Amino acid sequence: MRILVLGGDGYLGWPTSMYFSKRGHEVHAVDNYLRRTAHKEASTDSLVPIMDALPARARAWKESTGLDIGVTEGDLCDWNVVEGVFREFQPEAIIHYGEIPSAPYSMKDREHAVFTQQNNVVNTLNVLFAMRDITPDAHLVKLGTMGEYGTPNIDIEEGYIEIEHKGRMDTLPFPKLPGSLYHLSKVHDSHNIHFACRIWGTRATDLNQGVVYGIETEETKLDERFSTRFDYDDVFGTALNRFCLQAVIGHPLTVYGKGGQTRGYLNIVDTLQCVELATLNPAAAGEMRVFNQFTEQFSISQLAELVKHAGAEVGLDVTVNSIENPRVEMEEHYYNPQHTKLLDLGLQPHLLSEALVEHIFEVIGRYKDRVIMDHILPRDRWRP
Amino acid sequence: MRILVLGGDGYLGWPTSMYFSKRGHEVHAVDNYLRRTAHKEASTDSLVPIMDALPARARAWKESTGLDIGVTEGDLCDWNVVEGVFREFQPEAIIHYGEIPSAPYSMKDREHAVFTQQNNVVNTLNVLFAMRDITPDAHLVKLGTMGEYGTPNIDIEEGYIEIEHKGRMDTLPFPKLPGSLYHLSKVHDSHNIHFACRIWGTRATDLNQGVVYGIETEETKLDERFSTRFDYDDVFGTALNRFCLQAVIGHPLTVYGKGGQTRGYLNIVDTLQCVELATLNPAAAGEMRVFNQFTEQFSISQLAELVKHAGAEVGLDVTVNSIENPRVEMEEHYYNPQHTKLLDLGLQPHLLSEALVEHIFEVIGRYKDRVIMDHILPRDRWRP
Repeated sequence: MRILVLGGDGYLGWPTSMYFSKRGHEVHAVDNYLRRTAHKEASTDSLVPIMDALPARARAWKESTGLDIGVTEGDLCDWNVVEGVFREFQPEAIIHYGEIPSAPYSMKDREHAVFTQQNNVVNTLNVLFAMRDITPDAHLVKLGTMGEYGTPNIDIEEGYIEIEHKGRMDTLPFPKLPGSLYHLSKVHDSHNIHFACRIWGTRATDLNQGVVYGIETEETKLDERFSTRFDYDDVFGTALNRFCLQAVIGHPLTVYGKGGQTRGYLNIVDTLQCVELATLNPAAAGEMRVFNQFTEQFSISQLAELVKHAGAEVGLDVTVNSIENPRVEMEEHYYNPQHTKLLDLGLQPHLLSEALVEHIFEVIGRYKDRVIMDHILPRDRWRP
Repeated sequence: MRILVLGGDGYLGWPTSMYFSKRGHEVHAVDNYLRRTAHKEASTDSLVPIMDALPARARAWKESTGLDIGVTEGDLCDWNVVEGVFREFQPEAIIHYGEIPSAPYSMKDREHAVFTQQNNVVNTLNVLFAMRDITPDAHLVKLGTMGEYGTPNIDIEEGYIEIEHKGRMDTLPFPKLPGSLYHLSKVHDSHNIHFACRIWGTRATDLNQGVVYGIETEETKLDERFSTRFDYDDVFGTALNRFCLQAVIGHPLTVYGKGGQTRGYLNIVDTLQCVELATLNPAAAGEMRVFNQFTEQFSISQLAELVKHAGAEVGLDVTVNSIENPRVEMEEHYYNPQHTKLLDLGLQPHLLSEALVEHIFEVIGRYKDRVIMDHILPRDRWRP
């Protein structure tokens, strides 16, 4: 299959590109290195060293495996870039990771908020128009986020909810309560994509993904040059990464507020599995499928406890501190999102274990000297 | 009250500016004349001649009434403009009409779609940040549209719906099925505004307005120079305006498809009343109120019949034709949106009557020689 990976230089985009290439697909990766640029601007970096930009990565991949990954360095907000790639590559599936992926980034200030929404919404609109006019039969696999739903007081369904109201019935998009201006940009995308499916007959799968953890995939392990990034900083890092790093360097784990914030989580190898399942089983013409993409749920306190226990196993003395929550979010809430659709397609979950956490400790230990200490604590507050 | 009218040069913005000025409020109007520019580009124009841009309008207003309307000519997507106006004027209420308001405009092509969403979303984000940082106690009165809801198979509530699901209950934003990329931009705005209320304590009222008709308000009648625009073209005109014009010039009324498309409607004088009621009864801090702003509902066929009857009264021989629907929409559907909240605040509806239609005929007759014939039929199709 001809698979276009948008955001192909990213934490998930690069492993996804290698994964499909290894399995015999024709892969073309596009990126404008927004994440690398944002890190440079903030003086932060991936803990695990990663290779230079996509052309170097693709060359190394070719050297080691004999396989080609096509590369375009360009901005998806630029129609000429999008049109050129679609006309030349004629993708059958488009895996769209190519967005600003960070809540704290979007909440820094007005400029970052506007940039996040403009970048994400406009580049997805460009992709939808390219699909409509150039590859109308292609299938969009769009990375959304479980954060689009927020934490309502009812069970979260996969994208749609059947509502009985005053004696009548309809199945409608699940109402959204996103928690940051970044999460809002994904809600806007979901609405735009749903419209394209309804009006233009576009095929789309919106993957409402949980928080991804893990450093290694089958492909990254083949060669050190294939490593993907590991972010732990206040802007691009996630709680589990930060906790693991704090455990290794002897910093107390920083739980935001009460720690009852519960979210869905999944291993990076399960992200690859889910994206493959969605891609190989495409949506019908005019269908916008929504899959809730995670394998288990944890509260922040549960993650901290897990890291603490795993630390004790390997002789790390881990303490857990609550710090003032920079975000505005419920710290104790009901949370029961459904996530059966990917399991029905055949997903085999790799659950979070102390063994995996200990492996992350090991990798962190290897790159301990690269830790940038003053970017571990949160700086951007939801209420300035 | 210090009232900022964004989009103060528009069909509703200019009458709103005069209305509040006449009632003793301090009014400042902002516009960058997007509507005038779009008309120039398309070689269309308002049927009723309107004065030159805002400074001329404000001078005429001052001459005739002795009252001041402040003016800023500028783009709300430019933060310097927004920041400057907020710092200088320190608004207590912001009436936000300042957006691209046309579904066909947004569906012309990719460029117009991207421009519509970017313009509307970014300028509203700028307003929200200005409110947060400069006038945190001010109240946003935002013009949304009933078109955000689409035509679900259940009753449409005012912004929120109580959902009982698997034995649990929550009140959540009403799910949206917008029918064009323009309507989507308003859905995006609604989500962003809701977030600002939840996180920053912003006060906001989202007025989900029906289709507005009518040419005159108390203020436009004071002086010919105070006239507001009357659009009948394929991009900015609405069905009732088009039907009235077609009746007068002897063109068959062009009903799109089956004509069962049902929407909420209101008179322009009721728009002014609603906006005043919302403004004088502001939302609480952190509250995002949603009012469905219309007074009665009609199907397209009902409107065509009404115009036909009114035409017969004044000796016009009106025929009704169905033409291929350029839009993708249900042409027969359930429609029962609630609209009690503005009535509860005291709205006194001015319902649509044959007398009013006959008055519109008269005004159209006066400017018959200004009709641009080749912009009456639709050119932009939802499915290209």
